[in-house]
Amino acid sequence: MLNFRPVLLVTGALVAALGVMMLIPMFADLIATAEVHRADWSAFAIGASASVLIGGGAAAASWGRIETISLREGFLLTSASWLAIVVFSAIPLAIGEMELSYTDAFFEAMSGITTTGSTVVSGLDDAPPGFLLWRSMLQWFGGVGVIIMAFAVLPALKIGGMQIFKNEAWDTSEKFIANAAQYSLGLSGIYVFFTIACFIALWGFGMPAFDALNHALTAISTGGFSTKDASVGAFLTVGRAPLDLVITVFMVIGSLPFGIFLIVIMRGAWKRLFTDSQIRFFALTILVLTLAVMVDVIEAFGHLGLFTAFRMAIFNVVSILTGTGYATTDYDDWGPFAIAFFFCIMFVGGCAGSTSCGMKIFRFQVALAALVLYARRLAHPNGVFVARYNGHPLTNEVFVSVLSFFFVYFAIFATLAVFLSGLGLDTLTAISSAGTAVANVGPGLGDIVGPAGNFATLPDAAKWAMAAGMLLGRLEFFTVLVLFSPAFWRG
Amino acid sequence: MLNFRPVLLVTGALVAALGVMMLIPMFADLIATAEVHRADWSAFAIGASASVLIGGGAAAASWGRIETISLREGFLLTSASWLAIVVFSAIPLAIGEMELSYTDAFFEAMSGITTTGSTVVSGLDDAPPGFLLWRSMLQWFGGVGVIIMAFAVLPALKIGGMQIFKNEAWDTSEKFIANAAQYSLGLSGIYVFFTIACFIALWGFGMPAFDALNHALTAISTGGFSTKDASVGAFLTVGRAPLDLVITVFMVIGSLPFGIFLIVIMRGAWKRLFTDSQIRFFALTILVLTLAVMVDVIEAFGHLGLFTAFRMAIFNVVSILTGTGYATTDYDDWGPFAIAFFFCIMFVGGCAGSTSCGMKIFRFQVALAALVLYARRLAHPNGVFVARYNGHPLTNEVFVSVLSFFFVYFAIFATLAVFLSGLGLDTLTAISSAGTAVANVGPGLGDIVGPAGNFATLPDAAKWAMAAGMLLGRLEFFTVLVLFSPAFWRG
Ligand SMILES: [K+]
Ligand SMILES: [K+]
Repeated sequence: MLNFRPVLLVTGALVAALGVMMLIPMFADLIATAEVHRADWSAFAIGASASVLIGGGAAAASWGRIETISLREGFLLTSASWLAIVVFSAIPLAIGEMELSYTDAFFEAMSGITTTGSTVVSGLDDAPPGFLLWRSMLQWFGGVGVIIMAFAVLPALKIGGMQIFKNEAWDTSEKFIANAAQYSLGLSGIYVFFTIACFIALWGFGMPAFDALNHALTAISTGGFSTKDASVGAFLTVGRAPLDLVITVFMVIGSLPFGIFLIVIMRGAWKRLFTDSQIRFFALTILVLTLAVMVDVIEAFGHLGLFTAFRMAIFNVVSILTGTGYATTDYDDWGPFAIAFFFCIMFVGGCAGSTSCGMKIFRFQVALAALVLYARRLAHPNGVFVARYNGHPLTNEVFVSVLSFFFVYFAIFATLAVFLSGLGLDTLTAISSAGTAVANVGPGLGDIVGPAGNFATLPDAAKWAMAAGMLLGRLEFFTVLVLFSPAFWRG
Repeated sequence: MLNFRPVLLVTGALVAALGVMMLIPMFADLIATAEVHRADWSAFAIGASASVLIGGGAAAASWGRIETISLREGFLLTSASWLAIVVFSAIPLAIGEMELSYTDAFFEAMSGITTTGSTVVSGLDDAPPGFLLWRSMLQWFGGVGVIIMAFAVLPALKIGGMQIFKNEAWDTSEKFIANAAQYSLGLSGIYVFFTIACFIALWGFGMPAFDALNHALTAISTGGFSTKDASVGAFLTVGRAPLDLVITVFMVIGSLPFGIFLIVIMRGAWKRLFTDSQIRFFALTILVLTLAVMVDVIEAFGHLGLFTAFRMAIFNVVSILTGTGYATTDYDDWGPFAIAFFFCIMFVGGCAGSTSCGMKIFRFQVALAALVLYARRLAHPNGVFVARYNGHPLTNEVFVSVLSFFFVYFAIFATLAVFLSGLGLDTLTAISSAGTAVANVGPGLGDIVGPAGNFATLPDAAKWAMAAGMLLGRLEFFTVLVLFSPAFWRG
């Protein structure tokens, strides 16, 4: 039997906590330097009240000790809590000074929480501070939520091969962290540490404090929301420090497996950072892709210096590969190779156990291992071959999980692209919007939704469909899709 | 140890046989009504001589009894023989009256043999009959080659889950056909029968005999080459019989599993046509997709009658779904939904064991079975669930094979699309050319390579890359890719 009480209790408590967090942007608005922005505080006051009352009420109504949470309740809780948080966090965006429709506010909140970073807002440069801060905070919450989910929830639910990380630190024989709560606290601590480090670095290199705070929140979470319509490009003026390189470092950190950081800190096992198979493959991927883009931009803009080409290449490669989605230039203008290239790499993503999005590096490694194993068995039918990942043997069950993940990924992406086309979006806009949503990247391609545009002009149905795609992508599809299976609700 | 002798022997014999076949278009040119076309006969005479001499020479040099062919030799033979046939069948196209470059001739021959149907030729309406007939014959040979390969080769090589068809008729306890040669003869007989039926139907309904012959050859093989620049649309004039519906029937027949036809004929088991899981799913797919397109064209062109909408919809759905690629209208003009829709369904393909291309219906069924199984096991971790296909249980090995196939499909498609973009093709042209090549469909999308255009203007490198994509797609990737694995050549 499904027990809804723990689902309601946890979801309600999370919504109430979200309400309390709304007090931060409320204060940001109250102390705004521009008189015109201060009125925006009331939107957060109302949002906070609604969230605390309704969330707290739901939690109180279902109060009691939670003995166990079954697998099925785990699935339900994951989807329900993410969705409830989006519904409530959209309130202050809808009723505030920016006067978004609820559809737009929901899109923006979903884009925030899922760390997608697609926006329907233009005129960010003149938006109230509370509004900007709330968007950044949503991405930051989403980022840490995903890190904890990748350790506490996805391996248990066997989502897309994540079971291979089940024993990674969490269940080691040494049991160096006793339980899930402590473990989550450790991960959150590391996350906070890197956020502060990013803020200090950006601020120290000359970014205004408020912008530095916001970009710290959205860089470590590979979210990509900015405080400027021109995104990070707005801060790159001549004579300034290379803030893009600072941000690149923190986008990479946000895309590394946080569980490894924890092992490093608890055990002092620094070597793990350089021996972990996923980290090595990720580093190699960045290197190869950056070189490819360097060659392309040097060919396209002959007069570039090598260092400038490197900066342009690595920033955009890391921004799109990790699914952050900041822009410094509009690579739509770099020609057809760049467009197709960036479209493809946005699906790749960073490491599992990080804030980053996309298919994740380890899944490509497992898929490649499956192919190599296949070729070996074929050439030598009587040989005995075993594929390994980080030293652990890979079973057929893991291969099926990982490869089904790719299949579902493409199926959902294609369905969303066809649906968006059916709403009248041109082919490039439809395909890139679908891709950027499920991969939680942010910008699309083309004049309308590319790095230089935004999603404001899309029809409402497209915004709802994209929001659904973002949630599916962020929760790695199966977590949500299994709720639509009749078998789930039976028995 | 790899033994190259049988590979050389069979490949040489096939090339020699191809040379003999070139005598047919040679005679077609010799009896051409237009004086100007008769000179084209010499191209085929030269091509025939070269093929018979070199192919026959290779076969003679490696003559001897073939005791066994190992798995690895099977892989090598498959790739080598397809490639050799393309190399030689391109000769008369290159040196004939149409004056194609060898790159163009190779592209056209590869497009023919792989039943892709992309063309670099415009001015088909005035081309020599031998030239047109040879193109059609190449597709026809390719079609029957694929049917035989799907039974005799792919299941043994365990390509992309094809092992589930290993016991389907071929190895039944009844052993109603004693050996592979007889079995191949049976399949070829059915193929010839349907080709003749298609010719009679088209001719009887008013298509000129030569055009009817060519379209019979390219419809049953789901190849899609036509004798007119306007493709099948050229034969659809007011007051004429609905030749498009006749062709639709034979494209569907060409996409059904020929092994089932053989069972039907040998055992009189007519019911199998209606109980076979793959055929049922394929029929349902056609039905649903046709209805979707009917709704779209009725919305787009309000004044259409229901029957006209049905004809437009079912012809184009079947043509693209089965990977035939004939056109009656330019669906590029139907708006963004049609473009995205046709782009997606071109990857689907028909049934395994047919002449059709794409990913094949059974792979989608197996992938769906894997997902349903996953959901069930999740909801009831202690339950015992088994997925079945046509009554046979599906193992994890089959799931891995099928799902890796999808993964490789997308990886090769994306790589080819990025490569074509790097050659300067615009995004839509690059993506659709890559897709149409690996899925062996034929037409791309957009002004350049869409149903109304052709591939003549693409750079040479793009033509070679697309030709490679066609061969990979036709041989179901793994057959070729395994040759690039170091393990294959070891030991
Ligand atoms: K993002
Ligand atoms: K075709």
